[in-house]
Amino acid sequence: MKKTGVALLGLGTVGGGTYRILQQNRELIKKAHGLDIEVIKILDRDYNKSDALNVDRAKVTFDIDDIISDPSIGIVAEAIGGINPAKSFLIKALEAGKSVVTANKELCAKCWDELNAAAKKGKAGFYFEASCVGGVPIIRTLMDGMQANNILEMKGIVNGTTNYILSAMTQCGTEYSDALKEAQKLGYAEANPTADVDGFDASYKISILSTLAFHKHVPLEKVYREGISSISVEDINYGKELGMTLKLLAIAKNNGGKIEARVHPAFVDNAHPLATVSGSFNAVHLLGDMVGDIMLYGRGAGDLPTGSAIVSDIVYAANKGGAKYNYNNGTFKDSDFAGDFTCKYYIRMNVSDKSGTLGKIATVFGKNKVSLQSVLQKDVKDGFAPIVFTTHETGEKNMQKALAAVKELDSVIDVAAVIRIE
Amino acid sequence: MKKTGVALLGLGTVGGGTYRILQQNRELIKKAHGLDIEVIKILDRDYNKSDALNVDRAKVTFDIDDIISDPSIGIVAEAIGGINPAKSFLIKALEAGKSVVTANKELCAKCWDELNAAAKKGKAGFYFEASCVGGVPIIRTLMDGMQANNILEMKGIVNGTTNYILSAMTQCGTEYSDALKEAQKLGYAEANPTADVDGFDASYKISILSTLAFHKHVPLEKVYREGISSISVEDINYGKELGMTLKLLAIAKNNGGKIEARVHPAFVDNAHPLATVSGSFNAVHLLGDMVGDIMLYGRGAGDLPTGSAIVSDIVYAANKGGAKYNYNNGTFKDSDFAGDFTCKYYIRMNVSDKSGTLGKIATVFGKNKVSLQSVLQKDVKDGFAPIVFTTHETGEKNMQKALAAVKELDSVIDVAAVIRIE
Repeated sequence: MKKTGVALLGLGTVGGGTYRILQQNRELIKKAHGLDIEVIKILDRDYNKSDALNVDRAKVTFDIDDIISDPSIGIVAEAIGGINPAKSFLIKALEAGKSVVTANKELCAKCWDELNAAAKKGKAGFYFEASCVGGVPIIRTLMDGMQANNILEMKGIVNGTTNYILSAMTQCGTEYSDALKEAQKLGYAEANPTADVDGFDASYKISILSTLAFHKHVPLEKVYREGISSISVEDINYGKELGMTLKLLAIAKNNGGKIEARVHPAFVDNAHPLATVSGSFNAVHLLGDMVGDIMLYGRGAGDLPTGSAIVSDIVYAANKGGAKYNYNNGTFKDSDFAGDFTCKYYIRMNVSDKSGTLGKIATVFGKNKVSLQSVLQKDVKDGFAPIVFTTHETGEKNMQKALAAVKELDSVIDVAAVIRIE
Repeated sequence: MKKTGVALLGLGTVGGGTYRILQQNRELIKKAHGLDIEVIKILDRDYNKSDALNVDRAKVTFDIDDIISDPSIGIVAEAIGGINPAKSFLIKALEAGKSVVTANKELCAKCWDELNAAAKKGKAGFYFEASCVGGVPIIRTLMDGMQANNILEMKGIVNGTTNYILSAMTQCGTEYSDALKEAQKLGYAEANPTADVDGFDASYKISILSTLAFHKHVPLEKVYREGISSISVEDINYGKELGMTLKLLAIAKNNGGKIEARVHPAFVDNAHPLATVSGSFNAVHLLGDMVGDIMLYGRGAGDLPTGSAIVSDIVYAANKGGAKYNYNNGTFKDSDFAGDFTCKYYIRMNVSDKSGTLGKIATVFGKNKVSLQSVLQKDVKDGFAPIVFTTHETGEKNMQKALAAVKELDSVIDVAAVIRIE
């Protein structure tokens, strides 16, 4: 039987999950995939975590070079997270010809070119299924399942923390700050939640996934990003009245060669399969020119789901042997990106309680070529009344111009919310 | 650039779709996958279909041996369907060392051992992503995405015809026979609908998918099968009242080494992601011991979605080179299959309008160890009243015993429907 020696870097939640899977399902992998995977070495800061997992201390090292110099290690699996020291470790491993498997989305998104160059230099395999949407095989699908297709569009709920918070706001009417605290208490959100709630994590993932979907690098700085911290239950509830559910979406589109990539809150129609993806579940919806609609759904985080993706990559890398992926053909040029993007909009504004106000607003929108789809006028409260508009498709720049003009109207107190509809 | 010569067998709906994709996206596949796929020969009965697709007649042959003997053809893609002559064509191709790609679920399910033996003999690759759930990469997921997992359970909506019919019955209240006629008119159902509505098509697919999931052959004759022709709108509507949706499910379970495979109508809870899969869409829900819940969703049929899966397999086969899959390790023994299976039940019976009837029925169920979960008593009509029960989990054999005893009661006119709840 083929033997594969593996080193694990980092024995936290994901690294620990990976180790447990490799122990618990070692016989399964032998029987089903003809592969005996042995963890040869583990790099972690101290013995605390490895002791807790009953790892023989002789396998634990504090020095990456023990791993790089060990010829019995063919695959290095990383679950440290962050840029340093993970970056230097993985570049060393790749340049030494060891296949790398990683769960590190930030590193993949920020250091894509360097990692791919190191893989090329070392003629090594570079695999990162675990970096996007946990145990859901979205990268395998893009690379090995969609070869016949131009991917036209990708929309994903790719961050469990924000989906948990938005689901709580939607289902229980909990306001953002309380839902965040609840998520932190339950371990779904970090003490410092910025990476999740401000959309950084989702932007890493859509940079990676759109690069694979469109076959050229979509750099992180080309991903528009907006988080969920200003979302209110009021808007979620008006959305419900309109048959829509609010999600933090990661979106990538290829409109005739013009690329868009963005992360922001968006309403989706309740009939769309993404609308029912709630709690800490994730899903990615693809539109291929041949296959049509595809959606993959599952757990986007957690020790065993993410560990499942790492172990899948280890088996894949070991069996794939010499054939390495070529993930992209260069980088998109600035001119390849769409200068503007179009979508429908949800707009809530507070207006003073005077007759004729709605007419004036509609006129200004019309003059600015924004076509309204629906209007919800709510009851007057404290002398002003909220109005909720939805629009037909329009360009983002156009919408900003229209909103600036609407704000000039005397009767408009403020534009309280602008949320895209996807 | 690597060149791959392909032969297409059959130029019907799926074969035609495959041909169109290979023409239309040939440059994409060159650029993104470094592979130039050329259709060298096409086998079809006459020139009608090939002329319609502007195929050079020099490429069309009526003789399989023209293809087998052509050394420039490395991959044979089959979309003829049925057992004969497809079986002999594919066995010839495999034994000659040509990789085979097929959409033929009936052939894969019925002749699994023979096809795999031929592949082994010819050291050829054997790929059949297109045989199950059209363009949805369920086989790639099972083989290349779930290696870390014991698959515990698989539940799929794998037949578009029946899902279309059941969705029409659910959404519009159309009775079965009218919904079937409508589906036939729209091309979603065949003139002879037996393969779909009686669950044969779904049973082929679950035989194939459970074989891959459990790593041993689950022969077709071990798949329990029941179709949808006796389903009434009345039961679908009672299910709605109980928060459930009716689907034709293909189910495979591995309960501690005891295998179950079955196809039958079943109610699913509205909160389950399968409940919202409607119309001609398909989906497969997996439960892995490490990854937890995964669902794949998309179009299960059609020229381009199924063609997308065939082309995906062609690219995969061409790039995979020498490394062939080993799909299974023998066949499950009779004793590996569960002698009974357990689930919850929905039961509708008509009873005479006498006091104490409900008590008597409940007593008989209790004596037979069937525990009731809910009772819906409907209004008396024409001297009898329908009662709808749902039960907690119980064995199928036990349930049959209990139902036999209930039927003995004077006040029970008939047991009108017994539907499993999954």
